[in-house]
Amino acid sequence: MLKSTKLIMALCVSGMLAVMPANGEETKTAQISLAPPEVTQTKLDNGLEIIVIPDRRAPVVTHMIWYKAGSADEPTGKSGIAHFLEHLMFKGTKTVPAGEFSKKVAEIGGQENAFTSVDYTAYYQKIAPEALEMAMGYEADRMHNLILSDEVIEPEKKVILEERRSRIDSEPRSILQETVEATLFKHHPYGTPIIGWQNEMLGLSKDDAIAFYNKFYSPNNAVLVVAGDVEPSEVIALAQKTYGKVEKRVEDIVRQRVVEPEPVTSRIINYEDPRVTKPSFSRMYLVPSYIGAAAKEAESLELLAAILGGSSTSRLYKSLVLEKEISTSAGAWYQGGSYDMTKFGFYGSPRGDEKIEDVELAVDEVINQLLKDGITQTELDNARNNLLKSAIFDRDSQTNMARLYGTVLSIGGDLDDINLWPERLAAVTIEEVNAVAKKYLRKNRSVTAFLRPQS
Amino acid sequence: MLKSTKLIMALCVSGMLAVMPANGEETKTAQISLAPPEVTQTKLDNGLEIIVIPDRRAPVVTHMIWYKAGSADEPTGKSGIAHFLEHLMFKGTKTVPAGEFSKKVAEIGGQENAFTSVDYTAYYQKIAPEALEMAMGYEADRMHNLILSDEVIEPEKKVILEERRSRIDSEPRSILQETVEATLFKHHPYGTPIIGWQNEMLGLSKDDAIAFYNKFYSPNNAVLVVAGDVEPSEVIALAQKTYGKVEKRVEDIVRQRVVEPEPVTSRIINYEDPRVTKPSFSRMYLVPSYIGAAAKEAESLELLAAILGGSSTSRLYKSLVLEKEISTSAGAWYQGGSYDMTKFGFYGSPRGDEKIEDVELAVDEVINQLLKDGITQTELDNARNNLLKSAIFDRDSQTNMARLYGTVLSIGGDLDDINLWPERLAAVTIEEVNAVAKKYLRKNRSVTAFLRPQS
Repeated sequence: MLKSTKLIMALCVSGMLAVMPANGEETKTAQISLAPPEVTQTKLDNGLEIIVIPDRRAPVVTHMIWYKAGSADEPTGKSGIAHFLEHLMFKGTKTVPAGEFSKKVAEIGGQENAFTSVDYTAYYQKIAPEALEMAMGYEADRMHNLILSDEVIEPEKKVILEERRSRIDSEPRSILQETVEATLFKHHPYGTPIIGWQNEMLGLSKDDAIAFYNKFYSPNNAVLVVAGDVEPSEVIALAQKTYGKVEKRVEDIVRQRVVEPEPVTSRIINYEDPRVTKPSFSRMYLVPSYIGAAAKEAESLELLAAILGGSSTSRLYKSLVLEKEISTSAGAWYQGGSYDMTKFGFYGSPRGDEKIEDVELAVDEVINQLLKDGITQTELDNARNNLLKSAIFDRDSQTNMARLYGTVLSIGGDLDDINLWPERLAAVTIEEVNAVAKKYLRKNRSVTAFLRPQS
Repeated sequence: MLKSTKLIMALCVSGMLAVMPANGEETKTAQISLAPPEVTQTKLDNGLEIIVIPDRRAPVVTHMIWYKAGSADEPTGKSGIAHFLEHLMFKGTKTVPAGEFSKKVAEIGGQENAFTSVDYTAYYQKIAPEALEMAMGYEADRMHNLILSDEVIEPEKKVILEERRSRIDSEPRSILQETVEATLFKHHPYGTPIIGWQNEMLGLSKDDAIAFYNKFYSPNNAVLVVAGDVEPSEVIALAQKTYGKVEKRVEDIVRQRVVEPEPVTSRIINYEDPRVTKPSFSRMYLVPSYIGAAAKEAESLELLAAILGGSSTSRLYKSLVLEKEISTSAGAWYQGGSYDMTKFGFYGSPRGDEKIEDVELAVDEVINQLLKDGITQTELDNARNNLLKSAIFDRDSQTNMARLYGTVLSIGGDLDDINLWPERLAAVTIEEVNAVAKKYLRKNRSVTAFLRPQS
């Protein structure tokens, strides 16, 4: 499974929350205090980091193992190997036949999956607490006992190639997106598709998979996240009993990534495809992530995205959809959760016979207005409240909670990045939001994309 | 010195040559037979390839050593190291102090230089024949005895950084060009600037230079080209006496390059800069090179470029400059001489207050007309003759001759690629030129660039 979702940093909210009344006329501020969950963090002797998140609402537990290695850590010419290895991790070990782990999870009514991102690869099961030891045993086993035979390589390669065909090459939006990212990242490996370039996927071998596995799948390059109805001490004891047996195979890894050069020119990508039924406009700017940004810049970008286009009360929606009525949708987003430089995006689709060029003009008008006059205190307060509310909603999901912690730790963040997020957000000023807008929403940092039906 | 020039494959012309009368009214065909030069080719035991090209017109000799390693062979994150090493090669060896070789060449009234390309790095001296042994001795010495001290690294790094500032960052055209190439080559290292990304140049070290030197500067990865008033047997004896002493330090190298994925979307790059006085339009399509192309495709692309825009009788010049009078210049080119995929380009500058967009429209009109109706036999004959004439003119220069052989052999070609070029060109049909136009001049293979004064 490929992953490229937006990370919502905040799940742990502690502070002021503004409650929006249903009629939208007025914003009242109510004090809602949400203590951060009592997360337990520790580390085994072999370097495996452990996070236990209590969630006692139901007798269910989410067990995730995160490797700090994704597609951006692949060797040159081996694009797709991180994702290919993710598939191959289900093909059995020295002691466990292919498919047995998945079968056991299914037998007890559990769920399992795995996903590969640019920065990490993760495997998880959602199971009853009694089955945790079983899941940990299997997961620990495949952390060091994977065996791959030639018989599994070729059929599984067909699977990933078919995945590429169905997810990228059959989807005009994805075809365009692939070139947009390769263009935005002129040099950095975030410009390489997670699933891989097809010509390189064809050449991936058993040895490539094993090399990636041996280099990165070591306990000191992994994070264990367990969320659910469990005692932290028991989880740690079980982890010691299972993962504790896995010896670290490499020295601690420092990611070796090239730095994306400062962007200097605006770029536009046009793609026409007979399969496109509705044209759409999008634009991405190169911006820093939570991990790489200077203090408060990432939080300011998060707020900026919310103000410009995070909801139906944002500037873009109000202008393009409600007032001008030229768009069916319009918005902005900030994908803050990555190890290196990341993306700040805009999108909009023309309504009826409206022109895609006019959608772009209207988006630019909104951006320019903001750059000129800046944001208001009300906008800032509302955006902050909306982000905190989203975080609270997200927190309701055990899987989301586990993913948040896994993601933040996998990309080099720490618990403070989660715990202090609400207060960092609260500390952002109007001037700071205006400053990141001026600094980063410059056309020469951007790639604009037009998706159109074949003309 | 950086190099990114167009390679004119043909210097050795044997066949029909049409002589264009001065009044341009009519094309008469005269038979001019130019035998290929009697080039001597051999190889030393240590793997050094040797090419000797006789040129007895003057008592002068061009001595060149070509390494089959350029910027596209650099390790990830070390962009600029090929070019940096080129500079450092003048910093002395175990036995020769820094600058001594250059001083000796200057003392005898010789010329010297060096250049780095995406595919190769070359060093040359133009000297009197008596000095050939001296030059070979010094050049052979620095093939295996280079020593680098920390004292030379930092000052020379300032030199290359200043070179980048003056050649790229102070030149709007180069700034744009850098992004165009990074965009056209989404994945292949031809998208990386030869001089390097500035952030990576800053980190280049002595160890990086030595690693590149040890990996590639071995006699079995080099080509010696000597052109001039010399006896081949003597040159080979001198080469044995000098280069013959250099042991090969690596096994024969097969270039490890990633393959550029097939392009899928058209891209546009806009760059405005206050230093731009005249706007200009350009476009590049991704096409195969002579080395990588299917039979006759490269020759067909060469002819296509000539027909579309190789001279003042080409379609673009006639339409944009002479008829419509909207451009001061307009043309097309094909850069066939590279190891991997390469570029087919168009350019045009608006005249007076004409719009750059209209220049693009007019270029597209010319391209579309050609795609629709194809070329004529007269156009094909004239283009062929023009290319052959250019080749003959180029042949007049000893340095150009030496460069041609050095380039072709460095990028993996052989003498046939030079000797048979005229007859391969002669064998291209109208249909074949039309076919490559249809196959490669597709917008989704292209990057369009607009250079404008600051608005």
